[in-house]
Amino acid sequence: MTAPTDRTRLRRAHERGSYDAESLYKVLDATCMCNVAYVIDGKPYATPTLHWREGNHVYWHGSSASRMLKKSAGAEVCLTVSILDGFVMARSGFHHSVNYRAAMLFGTAFKVLDDEKEARLDNFVNGLWPGRMDVLRPNDPQELKGTTVLGMEINEASAKVSAGGPVDDDEDYELPIWAGVIPVETRVLPPEPDPRNLPGVEMPDHIRDFKI
Amino acid sequence: MTAPTDRTRLRRAHERGSYDAESLYKVLDATCMCNVAYVIDGKPYATPTLHWREGNHVYWHGSSASRMLKKSAGAEVCLTVSILDGFVMARSGFHHSVNYRAAMLFGTAFKVLDDEKEARLDNFVNGLWPGRMDVLRPNDPQELKGTTVLGMEINEASAKVSAGGPVDDDEDYELPIWAGVIPVETRVLPPEPDPRNLPGVEMPDHIRDFKI
Repeated sequence: MTAPTDRTRLRRAHERGSYDAESLYKVLDATCMCNVAYVIDGKPYATPTLHWREGNHVYWHGSSASRMLKKSAGAEVCLTVSILDGFVMARSGFHHSVNYRAAMLFGTAFKVLDDEKEARLDNFVNGLWPGRMDVLRPNDPQELKGTTVLGMEINEASAKVSAGGPVDDDEDYELPIWAGVIPVETRVLPPEPDPRNLPGVEMPDHIRDFKI
Repeated sequence: MTAPTDRTRLRRAHERGSYDAESLYKVLDATCMCNVAYVIDGKPYATPTLHWREGNHVYWHGSSASRMLKKSAGAEVCLTVSILDGFVMARSGFHHSVNYRAAMLFGTAFKVLDDEKEARLDNFVNGLWPGRMDVLRPNDPQELKGTTVLGMEINEASAKVSAGGPVDDDEDYELPIWAGVIPVETRVLPPEPDPRNLPGVEMPDHIRDFKI
């Protein structure tokens, strides 16, 4: 029995193939945690970091002292997002698999110019918690100086979504083995206020309504 | 105000530093999803895959046709695990951060020999669901042939855990801004039986008791 189309795409994960922009954006926007892979002295590194998307660009940031950011500015990178959605329990070991959403972006990272940096970072925060930047202490020029933002245009990418139940060999359906899916989800729990919050400060809507 | 020790370690994410094996194992064992970074023709790739640990070795697997596995066997790789635990909401944009657990392993991947492959894969499945391999249809030699298992000894690694509440500039604690933590958790939901399960087949304990 052959696996469904979405599952067979797993085998083409290495292809820098064509993609449907909307499906890709959906995966990229479904989480803010990614891995950025880069090469230093011929050796591979994958560093977990946070990303955000604005139109057809993706961004990530960190300390200006970060070796990862210094080395990957102007260099080729691979930005990978993956979200585990469940375990697919089949009737044989080899048909076990996972349901997931994943995206891989390939390209050359650029350093965001100083005069655009603050706007990018504000969009990052406000993208997750609408209006949050308006209620915070304004950014300090030294903080901005100490932060590097990298970006990449989305040109070469691959998005994969694996969903659904087990697909077993025909004859294995006769076996008295429990098969099915164990779904997995990531969710936010009730926010925990800082004990040092001033009296009377209430939880804003952008915190209360936050979903991941 | 200086950040707590665990948080300052974020800035040293690039270092191939020393580590405490137990802390590292704990992070590696807390999820089965990782990214493996490797280099093909000088370009970086990070592919999401599943890993498992046996003692001081980590393993991952896939189709023997996988370009990723072919190219990274005998080559340098970086295996990265990252788990998001929460959003740290501070009183200024730049003091926002995330709580997370992360591990990076560096080394040369080796191909697991044919006579050890099945034992490794069985340990992978039984490690997640104790006893599951005993109730499944036995592996087929063709399935084993079509699967490559790579492994790596854990020698160079870095583990980082960031936890706790916001750390703001001293003067910002006077501001009437809500600060705190939005915790995030990944959890399993009730298992969904395959509609093709035979009548009378019950959910085994290794499925019912499964936790991520």
